[in-house]
Amino acid sequence: MAPKKQAKGKSEELGFGQKAYSRTTRLISQNGEFNVEKQGLKFWDSLDLYHELISIKWWKFFSVLFFLFLGANVIFALLYFVSGVDGISGYTSQSILQDIITCFYFSTQAITTVGFGALSPTSDAVSFLAAIESFIGLLGFALATGLMFARFSRPGRSLIYSENAIIAPYKDINALMFRFSNKSKNQLIESEVDVVITYWSNKDKRRIFKPVDLERKKINFFSMSWTVVHPITEKSPIFEWSVEDFKEKQVEVIVMFKAFDDTYARQVYDRTSYIAEEITWGESFSPIYNTLEKGKIHIDMEKLSETEPAKLN
Amino acid sequence: MAPKKQAKGKSEELGFGQKAYSRTTRLISQNGEFNVEKQGLKFWDSLDLYHELISIKWWKFFSVLFFLFLGANVIFALLYFVSGVDGISGYTSQSILQDIITCFYFSTQAITTVGFGALSPTSDAVSFLAAIESFIGLLGFALATGLMFARFSRPGRSLIYSENAIIAPYKDINALMFRFSNKSKNQLIESEVDVVITYWSNKDKRRIFKPVDLERKKINFFSMSWTVVHPITEKSPIFEWSVEDFKEKQVEVIVMFKAFDDTYARQVYDRTSYIAEEITWGESFSPIYNTLEKGKIHIDMEKLSETEPAKLN
Amino acid sequence: MAPKKQAKGKSEELGFGQKAYSRTTRLISQNGEFNVEKQGLKFWDSLDLYHELISIKWWKFFSVLFFLFLGANVIFALLYFVSGVDGISGYTSQSILQDIITCFYFSTQAITTVGFGALSPTSDAVSFLAAIESFIGLLGFALATGLMFARFSRPGRSLIYSENAIIAPYKDINALMFRFSNKSKNQLIESEVDVVITYWSNKDKRRIFKPVDLERKKINFFSMSWTVVHPITEKSPIFEWSVEDFKEKQVEVIVMFKAFDDTYARQVYDRTSYIAEEITWGESFSPIYNTLEKGKIHIDMEKLSETEPAKLN
Amino acid sequence: MAPKKQAKGKSEELGFGQKAYSRTTRLISQNGEFNVEKQGLKFWDSLDLYHELISIKWWKFFSVLFFLFLGANVIFALLYFVSGVDGISGYTSQSILQDIITCFYFSTQAITTVGFGALSPTSDAVSFLAAIESFIGLLGFALATGLMFARFSRPGRSLIYSENAIIAPYKDINALMFRFSNKSKNQLIESEVDVVITYWSNKDKRRIFKPVDLERKKINFFSMSWTVVHPITEKSPIFEWSVEDFKEKQVEVIVMFKAFDDTYARQVYDRTSYIAEEITWGESFSPIYNTLEKGKIHIDMEKLSETEPAKLN
Repeated sequence: MAPKKQAKGKSEELGFGQKAYSRTTRLISQNGEFNVEKQGLKFWDSLDLYHELISIKWWKFFSVLFFLFLGANVIFALLYFVSGVDGISGYTSQSILQDIITCFYFSTQAITTVGFGALSPTSDAVSFLAAIESFIGLLGFALATGLMFARFSRPGRSLIYSENAIIAPYKDINALMFRFSNKSKNQLIESEVDVVITYWSNKDKRRIFKPVDLERKKINFFSMSWTVVHPITEKSPIFEWSVEDFKEKQVEVIVMFKAFDDTYARQVYDRTSYIAEEITWGESFSPIYNTLEKGKIHIDMEKLSETEPAKLN
Repeated sequence: MAPKKQAKGKSEELGFGQKAYSRTTRLISQNGEFNVEKQGLKFWDSLDLYHELISIKWWKFFSVLFFLFLGANVIFALLYFVSGVDGISGYTSQSILQDIITCFYFSTQAITTVGFGALSPTSDAVSFLAAIESFIGLLGFALATGLMFARFSRPGRSLIYSENAIIAPYKDINALMFRFSNKSKNQLIESEVDVVITYWSNKDKRRIFKPVDLERKKINFFSMSWTVVHPITEKSPIFEWSVEDFKEKQVEVIVMFKAFDDTYARQVYDRTSYIAEEITWGESFSPIYNTLEKGKIHIDMEKLSETEPAKLN
Repeated sequence: MAPKKQAKGKSEELGFGQKAYSRTTRLISQNGEFNVEKQGLKFWDSLDLYHELISIKWWKFFSVLFFLFLGANVIFALLYFVSGVDGISGYTSQSILQDIITCFYFSTQAITTVGFGALSPTSDAVSFLAAIESFIGLLGFALATGLMFARFSRPGRSLIYSENAIIAPYKDINALMFRFSNKSKNQLIESEVDVVITYWSNKDKRRIFKPVDLERKKINFFSMSWTVVHPITEKSPIFEWSVEDFKEKQVEVIVMFKAFDDTYARQVYDRTSYIAEEITWGESFSPIYNTLEKGKIHIDMEKLSETEPAKLN
Repeated sequence: MAPKKQAKGKSEELGFGQKAYSRTTRLISQNGEFNVEKQGLKFWDSLDLYHELISIKWWKFFSVLFFLFLGANVIFALLYFVSGVDGISGYTSQSILQDIITCFYFSTQAITTVGFGALSPTSDAVSFLAAIESFIGLLGFALATGLMFARFSRPGRSLIYSENAIIAPYKDINALMFRFSNKSKNQLIESEVDVVITYWSNKDKRRIFKPVDLERKKINFFSMSWTVVHPITEKSPIFEWSVEDFKEKQVEVIVMFKAFDDTYARQVYDRTSYIAEEITWGESFSPIYNTLEKGKIHIDMEKLSETEPAKLN
């Protein structure tokens, strides 16, 4: 996050091509995704199946697995049927439908390797197919195991940000603030925040990106909530701007977070952004720390976005 | 851990809101946990099942798996019973209890995919249920495998600290010391320690946090034990304080440890703290290195907390 | 990547022994591999089976597994045959061929643990062999599961570079440029590029390595495409060189990329190189950002290598 | 590895207590292990089963698994025998030995979940035991899978060092050198070497540790071999020392290596040491780079330790 270069006021470090962004584009959505779509990739490149399978929600993931299971069994059921049901001992051919259904049951017993044996292969074709199917079944479940662990070991998004940023009184001046906390039980160590304010400059006919000073940029333990404060001094790019300036210049406050997750032993990054419409003026955050019982500190996460009126300087 | 900023004596880096902490609150427990509780989260957010499952002790983890196994079998046993036991070949209906028990056995044979076959599905309902159950069984064990590996790959707490910190003579002055070692066989490389002394200031009506100088902050190989030494010079926040000062000011010595674990190829962090009551005055640590046999150095871990009287300067 | 030392113009940092490289050697292939082969290792050391198994393409990996499966079954089939087919109940000896085939089927049912049971062990020899085979089968699939996850968790090469580097007009001067993008959906954070130009010096009778200045070396978010620009100022080693100089001096532009992969929580490195023949003169890159729909930016990856004529300064 | 502090000649950074080491102790063995043993730990703490299981050789690992498999089957065989063999259908009691053997076979079929079914549970006791055994079997194989992957994902020791360090002519002076290479196919990026020379000082009555200057400390790509060179200038602690000095002062050259493993996406560390007896005087390393074919560079790893006589300055 190159603090030194940012301190010099360089504005091109974020990796957004300035020309590409018109005035009305939001750069980063509140949940941290980029407003970019890639085209012209070959089908397999754009598919990125692995990324898909470890990103989708758990119920979707299990649905995918279930339908693959179903599909594989339908295919093998038809293969067994074509090979002849007389190759399956413990069953004598009845109607086509019943034959296929029985082949399906036999298939499920082979693919899961449960192999009860009341239905069992006798012909060469069925014996061979069943061997292949059991092999595929085991590999499939091995793949599913690998994917599940990959899903487990992905860092989830555990930060919650206040819905709005605020402009609140701060010492003798005002400051831009937002508040966030970690809803999970994993410990975040050496947390760092960087804030870049971007706006449309009519003079330059392009978006300007300005890293801004923060009251505190880094904390050792992020076990509570953190109110990030950008004091609006003369050095700030938004010094003496009004609500209207914010909207007209399409201000977007980009937040970049970095920490070491002590619990899962890995570096984590997060990001969010506040656009002009998500910035509240003349409010300050309500206290979030509750009563102290036996020396324990309680944080009321529901109040994270709660504000109360405050007179601006 | 930002040594530069700490050198400047900034006191707000740790991430504890000063106002939130009354005089009687311990910030970090000896086993490194924070004295914080989060409220107001939605049920699912506060549950954090994954974190729970990889943090609990092994016997608890296996108990959870066993009861899930039992529960799933009870549910499927009832489903088979409702579907009709005549759908299970190799068994003829007897009493309701015996029917349910047999369904339970059949269920265990399907879910583990052992599928002996003496009991085997004949009706459509039972065949279909058995297919689903085997599928769920395999996924369940895939999940268990993933969780087990996640448990394995979590860094455990392998550091042992001396029970008390001590105030001992050091060169011409005194020093605050504690000793710790690594009980596991994993190699810790580039180990680093930071110590912050925090106390209640009656003048400021808040807790003060002061990073303090150490005789040695970083070692390359942490294969033995390490006695961390804070010389109480004029620059120290606890210069010329008495035992009573320590207790009255609610001193807490916060210890932050960081290293690279060579064996498991990852960064590890640890922390502990000593409160005034856990600091012994006028003692120094007993030697811990034993006899040398064939050039091997023996460390007696039992003596880690052992001290002997020493006259303070 | 040691920017400070590179700034001093040191040329020996890359790790290629200068004397070892004749004039006609390409150091790095376009897909980032080194032009080096190691000899004289013991067979097992040079095999590096694990690296092979997690690097080969998926279809090759599955082929290996399939042939191992096949091979193990052939071996066990012969063992069962030697032990006597009368030890397998549910089958009575026919021709030798049919006996062996049946042993093979029995083996597949043991190794996958499907164990239908129509064929089942009765003699001690077959019972014991079947126990061993099931055990080996389970371990084999456990190994396959481990390898699959290892394959999953390896960072793949997701960067696409423009086929050619170009010499294009840039402000008042010219610049060496190339363009690249990330075809996968994983987010790259804190991306950094280093470029080293290497050439054969007739005077020194060896290869010279020069790190060169870039317009921009680091970006926070690499969500779009990145055109890396080396302005050919007086400080550049290729200042005022002609096309012929490039070819005669065997210029090779070595590109080193480094970023944090936010999606898979790990550091990624990549590298490529452009030799003199892969550098186009007097062209500039065509725009790659498409129309904006609903504020989304479209990147046409097919145009990544597209250039249009441009008059050099 | 704190180059700045080392440059100041501080000698206490390595983490070896100077007093603990007598004159005759080697600090680090050639394969990188520390000469330290920890005593006084509780049985479970000193066991560190996980570390053992992922560190032992593969054939030992598989032996452990096999004996656990055998042991579990023996235990369950006895449990089935005690429950009564008449609870196993498909077998009628014969001799006690044959009964126990059959119970053993039945147990193997339950624990691997192969469940042929020729032997199958009928009594409640056997049914229940078989359910438990299949469950334990699956968990056991899940554990084995986790351990296998943990073994796979551990960084192995892939560096080979020259057997001896040498004192060889270097420019106008002499230098201490050693050579090493990476025998595996994994790519090491941003490799860094630190060398500390330690010796017994009769004057100080303790071991002295001196980090020394290297010709080159860091290379970007470690794809070939690397000859590390410590020029013996006036600043060197071993300036003008003789062979006898080396032996008398018990010199040990400690080598610390650090790199990023590009293939497995993780930081790797390695270390070795050369004692006085492993340092050859008046030799220089033989060339190791073979003929160039089609621009490929061949390294002959067998020659890594090969030297040829060279006249010292």
